[in-house]
Amino acid sequence: MDLARWVVWSLASTVLAVLPAHAQQERQQDRPKSAGPADPKLIEDLIAANRILFQQGIVDAMGHVSVRHNKDPNRYLISLARAPQLVTPADIMEYDLDSVPVRDPGRRQYSERYIHGEIYKLRPDVNAVVHNHSPGVIPFSVSSVPLRAVAHSGGFMADGIPVWEIRDAGGLTDMLVSNPEFGRSLAEKLGDRAAILLRGHGAAVTGKTLQYVVGRSIYLEVGARLQAQAMALGGPVNYLDPEEGRKIEDRRDYIRSWELWKRQVTGK
Amino acid sequence: MDLARWVVWSLASTVLAVLPAHAQQERQQDRPKSAGPADPKLIEDLIAANRILFQQGIVDAMGHVSVRHNKDPNRYLISLARAPQLVTPADIMEYDLDSVPVRDPGRRQYSERYIHGEIYKLRPDVNAVVHNHSPGVIPFSVSSVPLRAVAHSGGFMADGIPVWEIRDAGGLTDMLVSNPEFGRSLAEKLGDRAAILLRGHGAAVTGKTLQYVVGRSIYLEVGARLQAQAMALGGPVNYLDPEEGRKIEDRRDYIRSWELWKRQVTGK
Amino acid sequence: MDLARWVVWSLASTVLAVLPAHAQQERQQDRPKSAGPADPKLIEDLIAANRILFQQGIVDAMGHVSVRHNKDPNRYLISLARAPQLVTPADIMEYDLDSVPVRDPGRRQYSERYIHGEIYKLRPDVNAVVHNHSPGVIPFSVSSVPLRAVAHSGGFMADGIPVWEIRDAGGLTDMLVSNPEFGRSLAEKLGDRAAILLRGHGAAVTGKTLQYVVGRSIYLEVGARLQAQAMALGGPVNYLDPEEGRKIEDRRDYIRSWELWKRQVTGK
Amino acid sequence: MDLARWVVWSLASTVLAVLPAHAQQERQQDRPKSAGPADPKLIEDLIAANRILFQQGIVDAMGHVSVRHNKDPNRYLISLARAPQLVTPADIMEYDLDSVPVRDPGRRQYSERYIHGEIYKLRPDVNAVVHNHSPGVIPFSVSSVPLRAVAHSGGFMADGIPVWEIRDAGGLTDMLVSNPEFGRSLAEKLGDRAAILLRGHGAAVTGKTLQYVVGRSIYLEVGARLQAQAMALGGPVNYLDPEEGRKIEDRRDYIRSWELWKRQVTGK
Repeated sequence: MDLARWVVWSLASTVLAVLPAHAQQERQQDRPKSAGPADPKLIEDLIAANRILFQQGIVDAMGHVSVRHNKDPNRYLISLARAPQLVTPADIMEYDLDSVPVRDPGRRQYSERYIHGEIYKLRPDVNAVVHNHSPGVIPFSVSSVPLRAVAHSGGFMADGIPVWEIRDAGGLTDMLVSNPEFGRSLAEKLGDRAAILLRGHGAAVTGKTLQYVVGRSIYLEVGARLQAQAMALGGPVNYLDPEEGRKIEDRRDYIRSWELWKRQVTGK
Repeated sequence: MDLARWVVWSLASTVLAVLPAHAQQERQQDRPKSAGPADPKLIEDLIAANRILFQQGIVDAMGHVSVRHNKDPNRYLISLARAPQLVTPADIMEYDLDSVPVRDPGRRQYSERYIHGEIYKLRPDVNAVVHNHSPGVIPFSVSSVPLRAVAHSGGFMADGIPVWEIRDAGGLTDMLVSNPEFGRSLAEKLGDRAAILLRGHGAAVTGKTLQYVVGRSIYLEVGARLQAQAMALGGPVNYLDPEEGRKIEDRRDYIRSWELWKRQVTGK
Repeated sequence: MDLARWVVWSLASTVLAVLPAHAQQERQQDRPKSAGPADPKLIEDLIAANRILFQQGIVDAMGHVSVRHNKDPNRYLISLARAPQLVTPADIMEYDLDSVPVRDPGRRQYSERYIHGEIYKLRPDVNAVVHNHSPGVIPFSVSSVPLRAVAHSGGFMADGIPVWEIRDAGGLTDMLVSNPEFGRSLAEKLGDRAAILLRGHGAAVTGKTLQYVVGRSIYLEVGARLQAQAMALGGPVNYLDPEEGRKIEDRRDYIRSWELWKRQVTGK
Repeated sequence: MDLARWVVWSLASTVLAVLPAHAQQERQQDRPKSAGPADPKLIEDLIAANRILFQQGIVDAMGHVSVRHNKDPNRYLISLARAPQLVTPADIMEYDLDSVPVRDPGRRQYSERYIHGEIYKLRPDVNAVVHNHSPGVIPFSVSSVPLRAVAHSGGFMADGIPVWEIRDAGGLTDMLVSNPEFGRSLAEKLGDRAAILLRGHGAAVTGKTLQYVVGRSIYLEVGARLQAQAMALGGPVNYLDPEEGRKIEDRRDYIRSWELWKRQVTGK
């Protein structure tokens, strides 16, 4: 199983480390070319985003966040396969939009990185993506009841949050978005929305910056819980009008929130 | 958007700092006059109130708390636009009841400060106001089910908690109370009640002191959750009689609670 | 209001401190006689009980815990009016079963101490009492749905948990058990049960030791939440048989729990 | 009661400590033989498992986790009767599969250790067992609504989670699995499933390693809460297909989670 594969990968990685340099260069020629070192501020924010998502209960050991490379829109940055809370700058890998790493293919990688690459391909306005299993959101992914916006903090939800059914793309699977085809199918269903649910699994959230994608991931969870509670009261629920959602989003930023969230995870 | 405006404000603020003193004095003449330095104990309690509200889960990065100036009932004190948990004495600004700052107009301000100013205008008995998005309360703001008092800790709720619908005041908006007209409309709907809900948004809570407004904000949230749980049991719910609520409020203070809450946020 | 009264009490207390000794002795003659210093281990456990109840979310700033004096069954020990988390040995007061303090009548006292005294009067088997407003329990105090035992940790609930309605004892009040008559009415309704709910208010819980009363307070809250969740699933619920409850209680102690809980609040 | 028994045990234990060595050896001859010292890494992971289960809210002071001895499949390791959060290597005891300790019979032991021994007997594929009272799970143990898999993190639940009714095995009892007969009845009902619920009590969870059994215990709780929330939305719920569950389990490991969880409890 995976343990066996992990052993193989570890061995492969070790072997690679002791291979003569020219042999590695040769192999490197088949790989996508790096866009060069990313802005250190972007890496710092990517590490912060990882920790904030954990601190806020949006991810546990699973889930991941990526950001488009500041030097090349055809590259994105994401950690190797590690719990977000533990990610350090040394863990950040660079991928092309087919989700092929520009180096270190022997490291253990997120099997669902295709969620990120395929969304970046179809959505030039998106510069950051989160995939999570946040607990308030999953119930809406398996229910006939659609997730909607009940509070102004969820203005980005007012245009609707679609649900992607992996059975439509691949029948009965292990439910992971572990190849480009599933990633593309998900990205197409997302369309121009802010976020999408994965049936029985979680969500994929987009933003124009890391601040936006983290903020939206948090308020998607908040919004899901609010809707569930409002519905449980038993009376009709007064949802946001899509026009209200658009006006909120025109004005919305996460400057004040990001200052707090970053402080909470860095102590600075 | 807001980021752009923030840049503009920051620049304006910097420019202001290097303007000749007489030019600033001139501009100052159009501004409301300060009531002078507030009681340091009041500032200390205002900072504590900010942190308590965060520590108790009543505000996250958003939401704010104000207090009437101890030297002039026509002035109130509130932080510049910052997450309550991070507010320091240097952040406290002084406003007149039209919510115009007596100085430093270039600092980023809470766009919804009009909630505070307009309530202070109509309610001389109120000396402290909280605006929050506390999670148990929002569902009642979008439901046909009214929030009522189920427990004696919510005695102030027994006279009823109205809901303000911004659509009645301004149609389809970004849902923020970001001008004096919306603030006044909200304050009028509040009437002589302890608190009011904002549809799809949160609550505004009043008190005769910071201790009261913090205590009420906490127990409004507690009470909302208790009512939701009581209703979920399925049987009829036995609410407080308004007379019980009045008798509780006649006796109620928050001395014991404030001692604990302040200790929790100051370590003293 | 209370603030005024507190000032008066503080002054009275100060005056008392400077009165000539003989004057104080005279006043002391009207007071109940102390049973003498309590076992320091009992005081240590009483302080621990206060903190455990807070740490476990059973009390917030309000609520209290008492223990019968180890030297005299007609005396009990409880803090002056202070949030349980902040209680220190210097705060512990000694009362007779009419809830009159043996000394320091000028200190601010729990207005609902009669819950403790009146239960001790009627229940010689009870050596410790908790009064709390624990959040999972209150909904059952205002619902037509009775609180029952769904899990073996709530074996003491299997004989039923009655609800005391203060309106039956005193009509429309401030809902506080602030006199001996209300305390006796509550104690009579409790009968030989482990605990009782106070409508729209909270619970009173009994135990043969502090360990039992703390354990029961915690598992009353746990049990209430479990029942609410089980009912919410929609199907019939399979409650404990009273015979199961009795067999559990015959065997039950809180030794293992107390070791953990005490460690959590003392760090030792 | 238990206190009395504990005193007896303590005395017995003390007496044992001062008995001449040959007398103890004689007694030892009736006891099962030890498989020798276990792998220190296994003990380290067993301690970590205890703390992780507490840190994640799966156990409180009650509940326990065991692991099969690495040198002998007929021996298992588990703490003496202590809250999991407080367990140290010195507390680990070795048992045969009849749940008889190889030494130190005078120490206070988990009365429900038979859950572990009897499962190890019937399930050679199982190398680690958890018994817990996790709060989201208990409601399904008393409801007519079966616990199912709603999310891919609960793939191991897709084959169904049976409920064991102790009344079928022993009538009206104290509900504890405190003898080999109850343990065997439970293990038989478990069959080849990953986990089983105990009516009005909790769960028993199995895994091929400590990592699996801890991961499954956590996601059994997560899954129960997700199902309850999904059902509460009111519409039909789209559960995992058993085939999806099997494919997930074929691929599943807890490497990434274990790295985080262990770090959270050890600080390393």
